[in-house]
Amino acid sequence: MEIGGQTESGANGGGGGGFRAARCWELLRWAAGVLRGKAVGLAGRLGRIARDEPRRVAHSVKVGLALTLVSVLYYVRPLFNSWGASTMWAVLTVVVVMEYTVGGTLCKGLNRASGTLVAGFIAVGAHKVAYMCGDKAEPVLLAIFVFLLSSAATFSRFIPEVKARYDYGVTIFILTFSLVAVSSYRVDELIRLAHRRFSTIAVGVATCLCTTIFVFPVWAGEGLHKLAIANLNKLAEFLEGIESECFRENATFENLEAKPFLQVYQSVLNSKATEDSLCNFAKWEPCHGKFKLRHPWSQYQKLGALCRECASSMEALSSYVVTLARTEYPEAHPELCSQQVRTACRQMSLHSAKALRELTAAMRTMTTVPSPASVHVSAAIKAAKGLRDGLSEGADLARAMHVAVIASLLSELVTKTKQITESVDVLARLARFRNPETTQTHKGVAIDVVS
Amino acid sequence: MEIGGQTESGANGGGGGGFRAARCWELLRWAAGVLRGKAVGLAGRLGRIARDEPRRVAHSVKVGLALTLVSVLYYVRPLFNSWGASTMWAVLTVVVVMEYTVGGTLCKGLNRASGTLVAGFIAVGAHKVAYMCGDKAEPVLLAIFVFLLSSAATFSRFIPEVKARYDYGVTIFILTFSLVAVSSYRVDELIRLAHRRFSTIAVGVATCLCTTIFVFPVWAGEGLHKLAIANLNKLAEFLEGIESECFRENATFENLEAKPFLQVYQSVLNSKATEDSLCNFAKWEPCHGKFKLRHPWSQYQKLGALCRECASSMEALSSYVVTLARTEYPEAHPELCSQQVRTACRQMSLHSAKALRELTAAMRTMTTVPSPASVHVSAAIKAAKGLRDGLSEGADLARAMHVAVIASLLSELVTKTKQITESVDVLARLARFRNPETTQTHKGVAIDVVS
Repeated sequence: MEIGGQTESGANGGGGGGFRAARCWELLRWAAGVLRGKAVGLAGRLGRIARDEPRRVAHSVKVGLALTLVSVLYYVRPLFNSWGASTMWAVLTVVVVMEYTVGGTLCKGLNRASGTLVAGFIAVGAHKVAYMCGDKAEPVLLAIFVFLLSSAATFSRFIPEVKARYDYGVTIFILTFSLVAVSSYRVDELIRLAHRRFSTIAVGVATCLCTTIFVFPVWAGEGLHKLAIANLNKLAEFLEGIESECFRENATFENLEAKPFLQVYQSVLNSKATEDSLCNFAKWEPCHGKFKLRHPWSQYQKLGALCRECASSMEALSSYVVTLARTEYPEAHPELCSQQVRTACRQMSLHSAKALRELTAAMRTMTTVPSPASVHVSAAIKAAKGLRDGLSEGADLARAMHVAVIASLLSELVTKTKQITESVDVLARLARFRNPETTQTHKGVAIDVVS
Repeated sequence: MEIGGQTESGANGGGGGGFRAARCWELLRWAAGVLRGKAVGLAGRLGRIARDEPRRVAHSVKVGLALTLVSVLYYVRPLFNSWGASTMWAVLTVVVVMEYTVGGTLCKGLNRASGTLVAGFIAVGAHKVAYMCGDKAEPVLLAIFVFLLSSAATFSRFIPEVKARYDYGVTIFILTFSLVAVSSYRVDELIRLAHRRFSTIAVGVATCLCTTIFVFPVWAGEGLHKLAIANLNKLAEFLEGIESECFRENATFENLEAKPFLQVYQSVLNSKATEDSLCNFAKWEPCHGKFKLRHPWSQYQKLGALCRECASSMEALSSYVVTLARTEYPEAHPELCSQQVRTACRQMSLHSAKALRELTAAMRTMTTVPSPASVHVSAAIKAAKGLRDGLSEGADLARAMHVAVIASLLSELVTKTKQITESVDVLARLARFRNPETTQTHKGVAIDVVS
């Protein structure tokens, strides 16, 4: 059709030109429409990101503010004249040091300042040693120094403690040492340059810290505390959902898979990375709000690990509940599916959920664990024990239940193995893994032909 | 004793001096011993890190090599004279761009180069606009540009796709734009500067790429492939351990907790962060070894998610097995603890483990999933189904088992809730959370006293 239009316009000059212009116009309008659609979509997405967490907008504005503040150093002539091109280092520092949380900015800022200072001293020393060895040896010696120190510093980054807290400082150490060591200045000039550079970096770090701390501060410690509360809340929500949808008198088990509470544990399972980085940054922060200087941040990691274990049990439980709802069992086993079991299950989930809610309330107000929490935990444990004791006059049924659980979990694992096999199969297909059987058959055919 | 010695030395000059010297000497020797001990410990640790992964040593040497290569630019006078102080940018680029994997280096290098290029063009444009508005308006206008663009770019980093792939590029964009926009040069000079800076950065990136690709390359894609194989192997190891220690004829259940196979799933559970970063870097890599250009890297993430689900079921299973081993049940339920159940469990774990081993072999040789794997999966599924059918002539026992599992998982959750309560309690004690009850009592006392 496109080609037809073109030949037509070739045969019939004026009218064809009008037709072509009309088509061009249409195309342009279509393109504009598509672009407008994309732009509206993107704007909607950006709006959602901003609404979800308004502090993100504040952070963006803060970065702009800090950069504008630092760039004033360029415009104010007296400052610029005394520091010269080194002012650039203040801008550079602001861009790379400014992080979302106060702890992150402090960690990077202090790492940058101390890395620069230490590397500067060592580099000046190396320069003096090389300078004394004469004109010929100087570059060779400096190259050897750079090679040895940067290799050693890079290797130190593989030590887990250094990686966790001083990774950026080591990078800056390598950077500063190489820059100072290889620049072919005389030593006295070098010291003046190093001093100037260090002071500009200090100005950059100070600008960042003032902006992050005094303009809508985002504290990593507070974030970690809130994450712990949110995780506990999600666990409680799951247990409440299970209680109301599965174990209450008139529970129907209907349409279970669509219920949001059955998915709520997933974000808890994936919270480890966020938690670790927040905990790492929180350790750098000064006291703020209700958090004192030596707040036990590592304890949050232990709590998080327990929450994730709990969530992983919930994952198993939810898959069972869904299967149970899907399978139509004609008749219940009189002993195990009695009112007694249902009541015990209800008690267990209800009291556990209530205990967790009490814990979140205590965490939120930062008060000691209230007695109701312990009461609920005891009630839940009592229900679990009662179920075990009541069901098994002898211990035989208890053991039977235990074995049943193991057998069921194993058959669950079998299903998972099947899914894994399918997934590897998809991978093999997508990546075009070689098929050993067809190659063999081909060989067989070849031999047949030859023979 | 210290003070006694000092007064003694005060009273009796010479002998006391000798005594003091001897103590100093002792102290020095003690300090040297401690330092030697620490140094030996550190050396041992570094040696272990190097032995665990010799490529780490290679990476450290590569960084040193790339830096030394780039610093040659300083020593070779003709090069230095034509580029001037901009040579510094090559050194800076090498330090920050050099990553452990080829994909990481490529990602950072391309991000850096494109970020610099785009920002450079926009900054020159902004400079021209500001220049036309006159001497007074120029700095104000430039400051506004810096503020707006850096805020917008920082906000774009919160979009997940940008964060995952172009985070570093956006940082470099902000950096370059601010640097170029605020530097008070004339436009023609600016273009020469930008050109020079871009070419030094390109030289830095090229040096990094040559070193990472041609000297002992570490491919993120290969790492991801090996991680998937290792995860599958660990799952198989767990199932084999369960089979041999719990379901075999003469299985004793003895000393189970100390067995390493019961902990093997934990590293699978925590593999998400490594997997995500490797997958992200692998997408940047060119074809290498057996991996073609558009290898389906995302499929590894799906496989990894399944492996983690599997590992989380294993966590539940292992806690059950350990409890079962610890509890002394006097007698087994005749129906559930029979030889039949044990055999079925053995079949399920054995065949699943074998299927997983087949899968790892297929992944290692990059061949399609072999038929034995499917055969083993079918055998495992048959065993699971046989157990279910065989146990329940009617479906009542099957349902009973199902309910038993749910009740047991719930009572497991109760135990976890108890642990969480204890953990929060520890946190409250360590962080000195305020106790609402004592404050109330104090108030009560105060009122009593007042009244």
